[in-house]
Amino acid sequence: MELKELRDEIDKIDDEIAELFRQRTQIACEIAEYKREHRMEVLQTGREDEVIKRAQSKMPPELADGTKLLFTTLMDISKCRQQQLLTEVKPFVPESEVAFPTVGAVTKGSYTADACKKFCGGNCKIKYYPDFASVFRAVEDEAIDYGVIPIENSTAGEVAATFDLMLRHRFYICRSTMIPINHVLAGVKGADLGDVEVVMSHEMALKQCSNFLEKCGFAYEEATSTAKAAEHVAGLKDRSVAAVCSASCAELFGLEVLADDITDIRDNYTRFIMISKDLQIPKDASVVSLCLTVPHTAGSLYRLLTKFAYCGLNLCRIESKPMPDALAYLKDDAFEFIFYLDFIGSVKDENVVKLLTDLERNMKFYRFLGNYEEI
Amino acid sequence: MELKELRDEIDKIDDEIAELFRQRTQIACEIAEYKREHRMEVLQTGREDEVIKRAQSKMPPELADGTKLLFTTLMDISKCRQQQLLTEVKPFVPESEVAFPTVGAVTKGSYTADACKKFCGGNCKIKYYPDFASVFRAVEDEAIDYGVIPIENSTAGEVAATFDLMLRHRFYICRSTMIPINHVLAGVKGADLGDVEVVMSHEMALKQCSNFLEKCGFAYEEATSTAKAAEHVAGLKDRSVAAVCSASCAELFGLEVLADDITDIRDNYTRFIMISKDLQIPKDASVVSLCLTVPHTAGSLYRLLTKFAYCGLNLCRIESKPMPDALAYLKDDAFEFIFYLDFIGSVKDENVVKLLTDLERNMKFYRFLGNYEEI
Repeated sequence: MELKELRDEIDKIDDEIAELFRQRTQIACEIAEYKREHRMEVLQTGREDEVIKRAQSKMPPELADGTKLLFTTLMDISKCRQQQLLTEVKPFVPESEVAFPTVGAVTKGSYTADACKKFCGGNCKIKYYPDFASVFRAVEDEAIDYGVIPIENSTAGEVAATFDLMLRHRFYICRSTMIPINHVLAGVKGADLGDVEVVMSHEMALKQCSNFLEKCGFAYEEATSTAKAAEHVAGLKDRSVAAVCSASCAELFGLEVLADDITDIRDNYTRFIMISKDLQIPKDASVVSLCLTVPHTAGSLYRLLTKFAYCGLNLCRIESKPMPDALAYLKDDAFEFIFYLDFIGSVKDENVVKLLTDLERNMKFYRFLGNYEEI
Repeated sequence: MELKELRDEIDKIDDEIAELFRQRTQIACEIAEYKREHRMEVLQTGREDEVIKRAQSKMPPELADGTKLLFTTLMDISKCRQQQLLTEVKPFVPESEVAFPTVGAVTKGSYTADACKKFCGGNCKIKYYPDFASVFRAVEDEAIDYGVIPIENSTAGEVAATFDLMLRHRFYICRSTMIPINHVLAGVKGADLGDVEVVMSHEMALKQCSNFLEKCGFAYEEATSTAKAAEHVAGLKDRSVAAVCSASCAELFGLEVLADDITDIRDNYTRFIMISKDLQIPKDASVVSLCLTVPHTAGSLYRLLTKFAYCGLNLCRIESKPMPDALAYLKDDAFEFIFYLDFIGSVKDENVVKLLTDLERNMKFYRFLGNYEEI
């Protein structure tokens, strides 16, 4: 047969499949209605296995895998449709303006202050805390309105710890942003590039600028952070010692920029989030962040993603994390993983709210972390 | 109608769907065969859209989403089946014994040496390198047989950098393991817990033990790593200064353990991989690691995972990473993300090899990182 004929055959079959799918979905909704009236469990795993085994039994063995996947998806689509039909949508939260915060809160350090300024349009009063745990606590205790936390690709080594902290504290994400990592060489006022003999910084920052630093022939001295290096250099008042840090960090400690943009790696950045105690959803919110557990069985992540695919939602970030200490009480053989997901969407969209309601009801652990704007 | 009757209806419909699916798959395979004979492109996106639009056009609007998802999955299953049929399986690599390496290679540091010993059964000769980039280079240049690299949840802040390094160097993973983070307080020989006034360590290690350290009322001094703190304490020969580090690190620098297991957070660990220049697949290999790009369009990750679901493969790790600098040449609007995947499987399984062949042919960027054992 020619391609055209084969495709016509497929089209005919597809028409029949589509019609059967329509009928099947309708009956599945009737079953859901019946179960609701009789207060029966919606999810009946035994029945799912039965449907799959039945379908497989009529098929040649080489189609067993495909049949299983097809009928699993068919049932999952049915459930998505039922969720859409049966879930009552309560307005999620009234839309709220994120006022430019007058008080931010960051750990004193290189790029966090830059993120804070970007979030607040430069007008915020920054209060410094010694570590991220203190920032989370201060937001929870309402000592500050907003906190700023690095969440991805930070050179400070705090990101794994941040994730654990995120699960230990109550908060919502109300903004996120990427801050490019552009180190400068900063010396005391009046110093010149030619005066410098020793550079201090965090090990990672020194590595990130090694091309420039090696060309200049400087000696290295490691510090525990770029900010501490800058502070130390400012205290020394020695023209031969300079720090590698951000431009704003140099400014903070009254240092002069001796060389600009000295990083080897382009496109290096850290992603920061701004957190608040209460849920705030700005008008242009376009990213939803979630944390949830997925059973550790074949296909369970896939079936979770079927729910997102059904709604046409695009995941823009997915990370599996081993169960953190904060959730040790959930740890058993079946729940070894927790997923962190970001997707493009808004809680103004009814289908998104229905999906979130579904996840909240059916996942062993689920947390909505916010609907916000990436600025 | 009663539940039983409704389910009988569904069963009848399912029988018809299954039969149509069988016919459809057969014709799709004929089309694939035709295309192969006529040297036509296998993937024709226009045709896929046509199939979906055609099916949707016959359906009530509330089933448009479900219809799209069903037919997308149907076509993806077809393609998986065609891959199975048409891909010639070449033996992946001969199975190889991982000999206990006589030379390992690790950055001198707290827990990497522990990982190295665990990998090699305690019998390896460890060669130290100043940073992870040097370890990768040494493996590539055959200066050493194996390298050991932290890949997850390290407190050293090196993990984001490791990922970039992984893409810059050629290597295979031949083992992985989890090392629990159990800090000890280590002092100079002859010292007693009562002598200690100041503790030194990496900032993160100090934080991880803050309950214990605060109870003892010690003053803190930060170091750039736990290993450097231990080395410094060993050099000082002062009974009032101790380091927080691993037991093996204490041993390395001739320190005495003054207090054991002082970490606050239980279940804290770092995951390490052992890498080699050439692919080595041990007999009990059960984890496959991959890196690949996925187009940044709705559902593209889902469709990738359909391939895994078809084969019944269970992903045990998935991470989306922003495109690292090493792959900047791939960076455009369509390819913003790179995924790192681990799944349970073996290249002795024909279907796994066929899946990998498919991914290698059809993904813009794809790298097989190894098939190894988690020990």
